[in-house]
Amino acid sequence: MASVDTSLPTKPTGAAEALASAHESEHPLKLYGGWFCPFVQRAWIVLHEKGIPHQYVEINPYRKAPEFLALNPRGLVPTLAVPGDEGKEQKPLYESAVICEYLDEAYGDETPLLPRGNAYERARCRLWIDHVGSKIVPAFYKLLQHTPAKEYTIDEARANLHSQIKTFVKEMDAGGPWFLGERLSLVDVMLAPWAKRLFLIDHYKPGGVGIPTEGTNTEDEEVWKRWRVWFDAITSRDSVKDTWSADEMYIKAYKRYADDTTQSEVGRATRKGERLP
Amino acid sequence: MASVDTSLPTKPTGAAEALASAHESEHPLKLYGGWFCPFVQRAWIVLHEKGIPHQYVEINPYRKAPEFLALNPRGLVPTLAVPGDEGKEQKPLYESAVICEYLDEAYGDETPLLPRGNAYERARCRLWIDHVGSKIVPAFYKLLQHTPAKEYTIDEARANLHSQIKTFVKEMDAGGPWFLGERLSLVDVMLAPWAKRLFLIDHYKPGGVGIPTEGTNTEDEEVWKRWRVWFDAITSRDSVKDTWSADEMYIKAYKRYADDTTQSEVGRATRKGERLP
Repeated sequence: MASVDTSLPTKPTGAAEALASAHESEHPLKLYGGWFCPFVQRAWIVLHEKGIPHQYVEINPYRKAPEFLALNPRGLVPTLAVPGDEGKEQKPLYESAVICEYLDEAYGDETPLLPRGNAYERARCRLWIDHVGSKIVPAFYKLLQHTPAKEYTIDEARANLHSQIKTFVKEMDAGGPWFLGERLSLVDVMLAPWAKRLFLIDHYKPGGVGIPTEGTNTEDEEVWKRWRVWFDAITSRDSVKDTWSADEMYIKAYKRYADDTTQSEVGRATRKGERLP
Repeated sequence: MASVDTSLPTKPTGAAEALASAHESEHPLKLYGGWFCPFVQRAWIVLHEKGIPHQYVEINPYRKAPEFLALNPRGLVPTLAVPGDEGKEQKPLYESAVICEYLDEAYGDETPLLPRGNAYERARCRLWIDHVGSKIVPAFYKLLQHTPAKEYTIDEARANLHSQIKTFVKEMDAGGPWFLGERLSLVDVMLAPWAKRLFLIDHYKPGGVGIPTEGTNTEDEEVWKRWRVWFDAITSRDSVKDTWSADEMYIKAYKRYADDTTQSEVGRATRKGERLP
């Protein structure tokens, strides 16, 4: 976080501005986030999907609020402030996957995002959530942060992203539109922020994302067809659209990724070929 | 798995031999494992703790049984074969953390390994399970696989392991002996196999694990005291002892790690500084 880009807005814009405004009043359940962070968006989508009353607090990563640092000294976003038991202090949670599963378990039994009463299906969801986090997301950054100086080619980076996506799509319910079929689940939510960010690769990288459009790819046509059904469904979902700022702000925010000069934790880990934080 | 060490036993020895023998009869719930794999031991401990009827099937990593490969074409261990619904085929699960949480949810409500009815405590457990997998376990391999040719010193590797363990210990219930206090949980289980394997670092590496013994470290004495309480408790737990083969077999099996010539997935990822599989 050494080099500060002061030209970026310090709060959500577009649709996300309206959602943040509607949730700015004091509430014991607080999501501390940053408008351009995809990990934050995961948690924000879950709050929206389940209609959970909460307060959204935008964190300026360069000037973190003291009450936020008191709750989570490491200053990670997203951080969720969970109301303590009566008379007790708030308790922090972090790690987007942990936050999302917590929100699903603690709130709204009538809107489950992991299948209730079926331990095997829940476990299978966790396997594919892991695939999103450990395979697809890193492949996204390797392609977005590709430069001619890398030891891998852009075509290799693109092929790797395609391959990880196809592995995932083959596990989807055939009928769709969601991973589990007719009902949205945490598996869909976990990938949603990067689905929305794929256009950044088209914007910044020669050849773009390069996922075949309809009828152009005979060999994997069925797989890509199923992907397009899912992609259209997730990118037009209200919770995904409402947590999204103006497109051009992401273009600005991700320029440092595309130039491979970002100092974010995710960006540096990708550059060094390490596990994402 | 290119270079085969044919001097290693192809099945459990010591206490684990007796446990495996007692579970060799056909059963629809099957754990496919390898006696020296710590990820397998996690799942095996959970089966033991919860008293879940099952069949243990030792997999020869160099000659994987066809029925195992039919279930999980990637041939990962551990793999759990879960009985299908009536008349249906078995279904596979893999990833030790996913298997363990599945077993806890699907079996034995009277022996929960994640706290029931408290979503926040469950989420907190998942945070610290993640710390075990993403911080402590990689630090263990970086120390065990240290050679003078590395770009980091053995003292740095040791300090990193100590630091990750201390961060974990500070989150433990003060009373103990377990992470959550009086009741064993998945957090304890997830670290148990590496607690049992710490002696390999003493055996192979100059200076050994180097965790201060009682009264030798004033600054962090309280933290290390709490660690010793936990370590003694976990290494004398029946489920941990009963899933353990003869010490000398691990010394044999881990020589390739200590020499940094292992071709295992974990070993190669550690060598390259990548995320563990």
